[in-house]
Amino acid sequence: MTATSGPWSADSSQGNHLDDERVARAAWSRLAEPGDVAARELVAAEGAVVALARVRAGRGERRWQARLPETDAERDLRTLHRFDGRLVIPGDPEWPDGVDLLGSEAPFCLWVRGPLSLAVATARAVAIVGARASTPYGDRVATDLADGSAERGITVVSGAAYGIDGAAHRGALAAGGPTIAVLAGGVERPYPRGHEELIDRIVQEGAVVSEVPPGSSPTRWRFIERNRLIAALSRATVVVEAAHRSGAMGTAARADKLSLPVAAVPGPVTSALSYGCHRLLRGGAICVTSAAELAELCGRIGEYVADELPIPFAVHDGLEPGDLRVFDALPLRKGVEPATLGKSAGLEPETVAAALGRLELRRLAVRDGSTWRRAPQSVRDP
Amino acid sequence: MTATSGPWSADSSQGNHLDDERVARAAWSRLAEPGDVAARELVAAEGAVVALARVRAGRGERRWQARLPETDAERDLRTLHRFDGRLVIPGDPEWPDGVDLLGSEAPFCLWVRGPLSLAVATARAVAIVGARASTPYGDRVATDLADGSAERGITVVSGAAYGIDGAAHRGALAAGGPTIAVLAGGVERPYPRGHEELIDRIVQEGAVVSEVPPGSSPTRWRFIERNRLIAALSRATVVVEAAHRSGAMGTAARADKLSLPVAAVPGPVTSALSYGCHRLLRGGAICVTSAAELAELCGRIGEYVADELPIPFAVHDGLEPGDLRVFDALPLRKGVEPATLGKSAGLEPETVAAALGRLELRRLAVRDGSTWRRAPQSVRDP
Repeated sequence: MTATSGPWSADSSQGNHLDDERVARAAWSRLAEPGDVAARELVAAEGAVVALARVRAGRGERRWQARLPETDAERDLRTLHRFDGRLVIPGDPEWPDGVDLLGSEAPFCLWVRGPLSLAVATARAVAIVGARASTPYGDRVATDLADGSAERGITVVSGAAYGIDGAAHRGALAAGGPTIAVLAGGVERPYPRGHEELIDRIVQEGAVVSEVPPGSSPTRWRFIERNRLIAALSRATVVVEAAHRSGAMGTAARADKLSLPVAAVPGPVTSALSYGCHRLLRGGAICVTSAAELAELCGRIGEYVADELPIPFAVHDGLEPGDLRVFDALPLRKGVEPATLGKSAGLEPETVAAALGRLELRRLAVRDGSTWRRAPQSVRDP
Repeated sequence: MTATSGPWSADSSQGNHLDDERVARAAWSRLAEPGDVAARELVAAEGAVVALARVRAGRGERRWQARLPETDAERDLRTLHRFDGRLVIPGDPEWPDGVDLLGSEAPFCLWVRGPLSLAVATARAVAIVGARASTPYGDRVATDLADGSAERGITVVSGAAYGIDGAAHRGALAAGGPTIAVLAGGVERPYPRGHEELIDRIVQEGAVVSEVPPGSSPTRWRFIERNRLIAALSRATVVVEAAHRSGAMGTAARADKLSLPVAAVPGPVTSALSYGCHRLLRGGAICVTSAAELAELCGRIGEYVADELPIPFAVHDGLEPGDLRVFDALPLRKGVEPATLGKSAGLEPETVAAALGRLELRRLAVRDGSTWRRAPQSVRDP
């Protein structure tokens, strides 16, 4: 393991980093499983190179030593290069800050394919996740949220799974927006296989990321740990549909643990696929129904403010209580004297007179000599 | 106006109340509109009888004097009696405490028809309200919530309107449970007319309540003020469906103002009829998806606790992280040595040995000589 200038260092601005560190971190990502806190703490304390030398010298945990024979970081980096990928490590300009929120659970490095810069793309990013066995409703909402996020320049982060994840990536791609797929296995092996085309497209237009080296298989454990990366690469996480048991609930829990906003999309209470979302809402998650509301959670503060829908017009909207009571009292056909109105409305004569003036201005009341009635267009069901 | 023993005093236990007070309050409910705070403050300060005498003597607001000629409380009480109704006033055993939360907006009296005691029925009551132009989804949820509330002995309070209100009353009646309809007009005139049969049935089995005397028409103003009674007669208010403009939103706002819990039922974000509910959820309302969850809001504290759905069984549920990693590493067919498992799982030999023991106990792992593999029934999609 020497300080050769590796071809895997895709960005020349990274040239000031020692390649030894790069190779050592690549090695550590094979030696230790995601979430092996002891390994991360050792690397944090001694540096990846020294910590690796310690393992090579027969010290350190046996579980790391057991994997030494099959660990060949330079081979892994050559494989990555064959797939036009790059290794991103802490200190690189492309290293995404959010990942540092993970502390001693942060990855050693990220194996990346695709044109997006992780640092730039995750500056404003949202995780859109959910059930694999989604409903057409969930797929539609995920697509709409992703499309609307993309239109606002917000990166859509997800896990490339069937269902909601896939709909989210597709929505972002369809809008020509940035999207990042975080995989549980190596970045050179699309998983699930049915999403090979989708993942290839993300490689062409977005970024595909993993913390485990090429050749690694996506185990259950790695799926669970992968979810912390989805959460940490995003400013907020929204769950679109989730049954009672769902990896998306784990992603939401990870985001919450990182003190990042967790949102959920409501759905019919009669749908088992919305059960998880409603459980999150009951637990304090933010109710999100549109991309505008979602954007509020991941832009700079105050940057995105979802507009309330305009209020449909009704003739008597916005009337003061007294005016509404006079309006209520006005007959539709034959006019009545103001004194009669006052009695019906339970209001003082001056109040009635002033109210009639305002209602006339708003074309809600019509005068006939000394009597008053409702203007014709003002008739509506109460 | 003399202290005759009125036939309208249905409950002999109310005999210790002055009938003067009863008649004076009945008169005030015609003299002053709902929400006329000045009238309530006068009555609170001087008593209904003295305050009424003041108006009869030509003092007090002219709006009250203007209604004196048409005010005949004894006639109104005779009408009520013809409809087998009764007048309930503060201090009566049947007076519902919740109404006092309204302070100077409390009604002078309640005109009531039906066998339910208001005090008893509102001790555990929930307001189930929503859009008149509801969807089949909303109707179904309202019916289910009302049915489940009735089964728990919780009274369903609503406004007898088309849509959600009607579904709520019907759900309660179908379950043989208590229900209260609060009307904006007189209790002897069913409104809306299309709900005449429903309201008649509530008169037979529940209670129909109004704060305005017989003959009063349901004006817009009275609908708005009626909503504060629905809120105040209940321990909590849930909105099932509500478009952007909806009286139910007003009921929710009144409940919130009274510091009573406000809940909303989620629905498809694609449904305009769930818009109001989602706005409430975004504003901090409690997400309610079942009668059990609703009951939590209106029982005595700790009395009702909604059960979480049982978690569907999966073979690897509940495994410790280390055990899950060993389980992940176990091959399906040809067994492997523990050392190999340790390398795959990234775990120490002792950890692997202990994990294998636990997995064997849970029948997730099978031993073949010195090698281990996964138990056949444990195979599942990750």
